[in-house]
Amino acid sequence: MPPILTAFANSPDRGRGLARDMRVRWALEETGQPYDVRLLSFDQMKQPSHLALQPFGQIPTWETEDGLVLFESGAIVLHLAEQRPGLLPRDPRARIRAIAWLFAALDTVEPPVVERSMCTLFEREQPWFEHRLAQLDGRVRQRLGELSDALAERDWLDGDFSCGDLMMVSVLLRLGSSGLIDGSPNLTAYVARATARAAYQRAFAAQRAVFEESRMHRAQ
Amino acid sequence: MPPILTAFANSPDRGRGLARDMRVRWALEETGQPYDVRLLSFDQMKQPSHLALQPFGQIPTWETEDGLVLFESGAIVLHLAEQRPGLLPRDPRARIRAIAWLFAALDTVEPPVVERSMCTLFEREQPWFEHRLAQLDGRVRQRLGELSDALAERDWLDGDFSCGDLMMVSVLLRLGSSGLIDGSPNLTAYVARATARAAYQRAFAAQRAVFEESRMHRAQ
Repeated sequence: MPPILTAFANSPDRGRGLARDMRVRWALEETGQPYDVRLLSFDQMKQPSHLALQPFGQIPTWETEDGLVLFESGAIVLHLAEQRPGLLPRDPRARIRAIAWLFAALDTVEPPVVERSMCTLFEREQPWFEHRLAQLDGRVRQRLGELSDALAERDWLDGDFSCGDLMMVSVLLRLGSSGLIDGSPNLTAYVARATARAAYQRAFAAQRAVFEESRMHRAQ
Repeated sequence: MPPILTAFANSPDRGRGLARDMRVRWALEETGQPYDVRLLSFDQMKQPSHLALQPFGQIPTWETEDGLVLFESGAIVLHLAEQRPGLLPRDPRARIRAIAWLFAALDTVEPPVVERSMCTLFEREQPWFEHRLAQLDGRVRQRLGELSDALAERDWLDGDFSCGDLMMVSVLLRLGSSGLIDGSPNLTAYVARATARAAYQRAFAAQRAVFEESRMHRAQ
């Protein structure tokens, strides 16, 4: 049996490929690994059976037939990258540099991006909304400027395409229609280059199919 | 020459061991690796010479004599854990589980903790302060409750002490005097157990010495 990935039965992003299972799906496609998906409702995510796999009641998780259970999309992507070629260089020094970019995506670039998303989702009616949003836009712009300088005119952040690029592009995609990335043409081209990859397209189609399927069910 | 770690010349935490070089110092002490430190002012962190090592103008960085340059404390800690025994199990499955907890500390538990710190530091005079702080306390409490359930009565999160515990405790320490951890006696004991380790004590003393030194210089 192929390993099992968990994902939202009803993703809050409505099939836009922003949920964290998408990062794992993309890594699976880049490394050519088959998988099955188990969809979970929000209620199921908080049940003891899922909490035994994921202590924080989130998706995704990763379960293999021989009994490995993993959580945290960063750890799952790193694990997949270590299993088969495609997302990590063989040279030890280049390998850990690619891993540094994976951490940079999750720990330096993503936090202000998520905080900004949360603000636009949950604080829009608050009297402080405009003020807070301007602050958060500033923090995101600072990170994007630094990232743009680091990428410069290269195709990928450090050598060949790696799990660091996969994660960084996944984070940048969360900026969606905010326009914040528009001031950095090299980042816009970087995201376009990554999402044009066949592996990304297959992963996107797979998560999109879940949304289309659930929409059909709701319509019936 | 030993490898070089960069750290704040004047840490905003005033020697309380909360800056991110502390996580690396702790990992170095757990694995018995000698190192030198280069202290940087806030101005120096934004200079091209440092940006070439750390694209986001932060500390810590890690440079070895043979030319490896690393950034992101998560990546540096993982790298050190891979170099020598002490922070990662040998069994491949236990190893990646420990790494999952490293990611959980940084990507699931730390974001609300940092967001709460930022709010108490920079938004205290804002009209929304009380409202936001209550929201953020709730988010931190939720994660602490889930973490407390996951730890249960065990000494460490998953088998022996690992880089996952090192990072999780480093994150929990940022809650400082907030009192948020007091509702979870097992987490309080977990933090006490980890910070009683000789390696933690040596790392703490080393970063504390930097603060005492800079205080003496300022007093002169």
